[in-house]
Amino acid sequence: MVNVGIVGATGYTGEELIDILLNHPNARVTSISSRSGTSQKISEIFPKFTNRTDLTCDPINVKEINKSCDIVFLALPHTVSMDLVPNFLKAGKKVIDLSADYRIKNLKTYEKYYQLKHKDAENVPMAVYGLPEIYRLKIRDARLIANPGCYPTVAILSLAPLVAFGLVDLDSLIIDAKSGVTGAGRKLAEGFLFSEVNDDFKAYKVGTHQHAPEIDQELSKLAGKKTKVTFVPHLLPLNRGILATIYVNKSQAALRKKQSLIELYKKFYKKEPFVRIKEEGNFPRLKDVAGTNFCDIAVHDSGDKIIVIGAIDNLLKGASGQAVQNMNIICGYPETAGLL
Amino acid sequence: MVNVGIVGATGYTGEELIDILLNHPNARVTSISSRSGTSQKISEIFPKFTNRTDLTCDPINVKEINKSCDIVFLALPHTVSMDLVPNFLKAGKKVIDLSADYRIKNLKTYEKYYQLKHKDAENVPMAVYGLPEIYRLKIRDARLIANPGCYPTVAILSLAPLVAFGLVDLDSLIIDAKSGVTGAGRKLAEGFLFSEVNDDFKAYKVGTHQHAPEIDQELSKLAGKKTKVTFVPHLLPLNRGILATIYVNKSQAALRKKQSLIELYKKFYKKEPFVRIKEEGNFPRLKDVAGTNFCDIAVHDSGDKIIVIGAIDNLLKGASGQAVQNMNIICGYPETAGLL
Amino acid sequence: MVNVGIVGATGYTGEELIDILLNHPNARVTSISSRSGTSQKISEIFPKFTNRTDLTCDPINVKEINKSCDIVFLALPHTVSMDLVPNFLKAGKKVIDLSADYRIKNLKTYEKYYQLKHKDAENVPMAVYGLPEIYRLKIRDARLIANPGCYPTVAILSLAPLVAFGLVDLDSLIIDAKSGVTGAGRKLAEGFLFSEVNDDFKAYKVGTHQHAPEIDQELSKLAGKKTKVTFVPHLLPLNRGILATIYVNKSQAALRKKQSLIELYKKFYKKEPFVRIKEEGNFPRLKDVAGTNFCDIAVHDSGDKIIVIGAIDNLLKGASGQAVQNMNIICGYPETAGLL
Amino acid sequence: MVNVGIVGATGYTGEELIDILLNHPNARVTSISSRSGTSQKISEIFPKFTNRTDLTCDPINVKEINKSCDIVFLALPHTVSMDLVPNFLKAGKKVIDLSADYRIKNLKTYEKYYQLKHKDAENVPMAVYGLPEIYRLKIRDARLIANPGCYPTVAILSLAPLVAFGLVDLDSLIIDAKSGVTGAGRKLAEGFLFSEVNDDFKAYKVGTHQHAPEIDQELSKLAGKKTKVTFVPHLLPLNRGILATIYVNKSQAALRKKQSLIELYKKFYKKEPFVRIKEEGNFPRLKDVAGTNFCDIAVHDSGDKIIVIGAIDNLLKGASGQAVQNMNIICGYPETAGLL
Repeated sequence: MVNVGIVGATGYTGEELIDILLNHPNARVTSISSRSGTSQKISEIFPKFTNRTDLTCDPINVKEINKSCDIVFLALPHTVSMDLVPNFLKAGKKVIDLSADYRIKNLKTYEKYYQLKHKDAENVPMAVYGLPEIYRLKIRDARLIANPGCYPTVAILSLAPLVAFGLVDLDSLIIDAKSGVTGAGRKLAEGFLFSEVNDDFKAYKVGTHQHAPEIDQELSKLAGKKTKVTFVPHLLPLNRGILATIYVNKSQAALRKKQSLIELYKKFYKKEPFVRIKEEGNFPRLKDVAGTNFCDIAVHDSGDKIIVIGAIDNLLKGASGQAVQNMNIICGYPETAGLL
Repeated sequence: MVNVGIVGATGYTGEELIDILLNHPNARVTSISSRSGTSQKISEIFPKFTNRTDLTCDPINVKEINKSCDIVFLALPHTVSMDLVPNFLKAGKKVIDLSADYRIKNLKTYEKYYQLKHKDAENVPMAVYGLPEIYRLKIRDARLIANPGCYPTVAILSLAPLVAFGLVDLDSLIIDAKSGVTGAGRKLAEGFLFSEVNDDFKAYKVGTHQHAPEIDQELSKLAGKKTKVTFVPHLLPLNRGILATIYVNKSQAALRKKQSLIELYKKFYKKEPFVRIKEEGNFPRLKDVAGTNFCDIAVHDSGDKIIVIGAIDNLLKGASGQAVQNMNIICGYPETAGLL
Repeated sequence: MVNVGIVGATGYTGEELIDILLNHPNARVTSISSRSGTSQKISEIFPKFTNRTDLTCDPINVKEINKSCDIVFLALPHTVSMDLVPNFLKAGKKVIDLSADYRIKNLKTYEKYYQLKHKDAENVPMAVYGLPEIYRLKIRDARLIANPGCYPTVAILSLAPLVAFGLVDLDSLIIDAKSGVTGAGRKLAEGFLFSEVNDDFKAYKVGTHQHAPEIDQELSKLAGKKTKVTFVPHLLPLNRGILATIYVNKSQAALRKKQSLIELYKKFYKKEPFVRIKEEGNFPRLKDVAGTNFCDIAVHDSGDKIIVIGAIDNLLKGASGQAVQNMNIICGYPETAGLL
Repeated sequence: MVNVGIVGATGYTGEELIDILLNHPNARVTSISSRSGTSQKISEIFPKFTNRTDLTCDPINVKEINKSCDIVFLALPHTVSMDLVPNFLKAGKKVIDLSADYRIKNLKTYEKYYQLKHKDAENVPMAVYGLPEIYRLKIRDARLIANPGCYPTVAILSLAPLVAFGLVDLDSLIIDAKSGVTGAGRKLAEGFLFSEVNDDFKAYKVGTHQHAPEIDQELSKLAGKKTKVTFVPHLLPLNRGILATIYVNKSQAALRKKQSLIELYKKFYKKEPFVRIKEEGNFPRLKDVAGTNFCDIAVHDSGDKIIVIGAIDNLLKGASGQAVQNMNIICGYPETAGLL
């Protein structure tokens, strides 16, 4: 049994962490906190937790959290996490940070996309990118997890087999991604009002989204050389889920050999409990992954191009579910504990 | 041809007024203004007006508006309208006020429900309640129209025939109303975020909504004695439309005579272009009224009770469409001009 | 550990039973079947079960089911269940029937509303109405559970305290109910197409819905005399959830004594794990109950009237969740097992 | 004033044609018909037309239609239109066919994608592809209009300037398109039920959609050589609108010269009333085009790639609106008549 703290409990990913961890067979939630000033029962903030827990959501108090928790989840906005992380690390706590603060290894890139000087450069190098399907062994021993972004999770899992085996032209990676609204957090902006989003659909941050360099960083590592993604995110009129349709050109190597891409993907993800490869002619849909920690992937051979379609729940495999999966790995619990 | 000004153009009802009036065969929009500080093309604020108009939305300037307009529409929040109305009236303009400021004749009631002392008590008595089906003759000569609220429009039209003919117990008027989100205006509050409203449904302001006294005021006038409505509004996960399901007890008079309520309603609304009475066994649905100025009504005889179901588009018959209908009456244009 | 069979697995309630029971700590799903002709992996029918189970959905074979199961869930359409129930009962199996076939004790009423002569009149009297909050003791020893309808579940739970204590006029029970689309099952009718339901809202079966006599039957039992509900269901543009707004007149007894209705409700449902009473000024919303087995209830004192608002997930507390709750009671498991 | 007939009135495009043409200043609807067997007031089929028209929808009777109409709109399913077209042409009527039957010039391609031998090969060559922005002059004198498909309309308009001026590599045209549900017509299939589409998103017909060859046919004509599109359509949980995100590689010519793509597009569509080019940093959204005949286009220079985003209302610019635009051209009316 591990004692966990959830810092930043009132956002969507915090709410989701509470939901998962209250039912987790090996975890005990011992601290819930947020940046708001007063203490309040979490079931008053989120009435859906009534009859499930009497825990209180308190102002963030590092000392108290260090006293009661073994693992700390930070579900805070980008640029806020890095103020707190050093304090938990110093106290010997394991930290799973859901923000972007420790994901980008190149601080210049971080500072360009997040428009802020990094305040904890020292701990960035030791942070492990928490994508279990790629970094499971490192996660096991990590002290600080940089939990991946939602778009990067689905993009990297969808492209990893092709990139790792040199089957695609690394300059031609086109990622057309569509996300539900919770991806933006509980943000009070006119663009997220129901009357604006309902019956609407649009692209946003075309060519400027901060997840593009995160995807490039990880794909480049897998490929052994620089990749260049063209990434266009869109906003779907629904709450949960990301579906990415990815278009790539085959490399010379891929054009030469005849092989079943589906078999390749199945083999690559053979032992993965949360990656499901679709059979020929079948494609992911958000309904199948919403509310789950699964990533569904279809790969379609289209002559000189390959079309890959991946789908996840942005709040689960794209955030809180993956965070708990990382906790399970760190603690040596079954990787699916609390997540099926 | 009448020159019209739209004050408060950036809210939903203002946007809707622009949309209707740009296509109106007898109106010329000569001024668009809002409380924001700078001038900007309206097609930059609402890109959907691109290629339709080059008009600019300017800061509100009473003098300029009085110079260029014959009729002024005020699509402003409650409590803001009454600051401006006297200035337009003094200049001899006709004013159609979409706010609640001149609807409630009893100032104490107004002040209780809108939590503010009325600042233009003088002009309240002369304001005509702009429900054409009831007050057409008075509207014709009005200088100031208090355009009805969205809930009151559908509630009053649904109940008027029963109340006017003494067919119902006036203490037993139960109005269970369900509204789309635009009813609340373009309000930046967490409760109106897409992720909060989508897949959700709930009652709000149970027993305290400010439209209840407005409904009671008008029904009491029709009945010749005091009515008492029980009014519960709900929030629907859709943009446009209000459907009200109304339950009333038959009066002794109604219980005595056998009569077809549907025929009664058809006769009552015989010459009305925008009221449509459903045949037996048919009931309104929002889709049939959304985007239109119609009010669809079904009346169902259920023994000692009567069930009435009414439906409108809250932004049209419940606001901007009705405002233009009032303008048509004032100007002597065909009542449906620009509205079919 | 109990072996369970799910008959009628391809509808919404069947799908939901599989979802719950695959994760239930005390149940083992040993048979999944449907009326379609061939065997197929359930994960091919519902890809979301991929990686969760390898079970096959087979044509219904009573003998095989009797061999492998202790408890049989029937998630079949009304009028189909009664063909099968006797076969399972004869084999000594416990049966939880989600259809309406054994709910209505008066066969004439059944035949009027379901338009069919009952084919298993013999077993109707022994069927226990599976509403645990009212019939827990009987459920414990039942051989056949008539699992309640979705609307009746929320209506009865919302009214039970008032009716049981004689606080309301039994002729004045007005139930204005709004349901998500899954309440109708996976029915292929034009009225349930996305393009028809999205952005729409309407009443249906006004005064003729088959759940009205079910509600009256149960409330009459609680009251000790006949009740008469006025019941109008509506179709919401969302998938899951029912919210009922209920209007009743206080009885003379209630008018005489001053008492807190909220306290009364809290006491009445004190030990119930799945009923949550809202505090003053708070009201249920579908989001809080969707995906859960909870029933949230608010009771509002409005002078001579009482307004009660209840909310459930129609597929869980209104169907499959309640069915599993009944199974837990029958088997002596914790009542919340698999349901929190 | 032109007399028009609408054949196939009960589908979404037929309903839309009625809506537009009832309000058209120069058209008189003289015949409404459908394949169903009996005559019925159109306002009984679509209650929203109550108080707007008393026209009857009759079984299709070619003789009667030829007697009362000058122009015939066919809003029929593919493969049904070609049975009727010759009869209207022989009678000297102008025909605007909204089906795909006369769009594809290569009959083998038609037969491959629509799985049926063409029954009116003779009239295919004379049919004019009804995209006014490209074929306005030919449309003026056409006797038979093949009204474009919804996806092709937005795809061709979005790519025409680039393809016509040789600015893109013609093998690299990737069209990622997302459509609302009405694009599929009023089709009774499980996949189009509200409970299946709501909260869902998915790709379909990946690499096999029948609109791909239609797009290639028209782009090849513009380019003067063969193009090859990669086309992946997706289903959005909303009723109306298509947004296509298009990725292309610049040609050598384009890489050499520095030019503003936005200016190029503005010039290309300078006189077009229904094409609107977005300014730098602005992108189309479905809300701006839904309910209109506009096509909004953004073009984004991304180094060696160009990203184009186009949006239309699939039922208007993608079907019935464009059909009326074609009628306006044929009749010499202002092209925007009835469409703004």
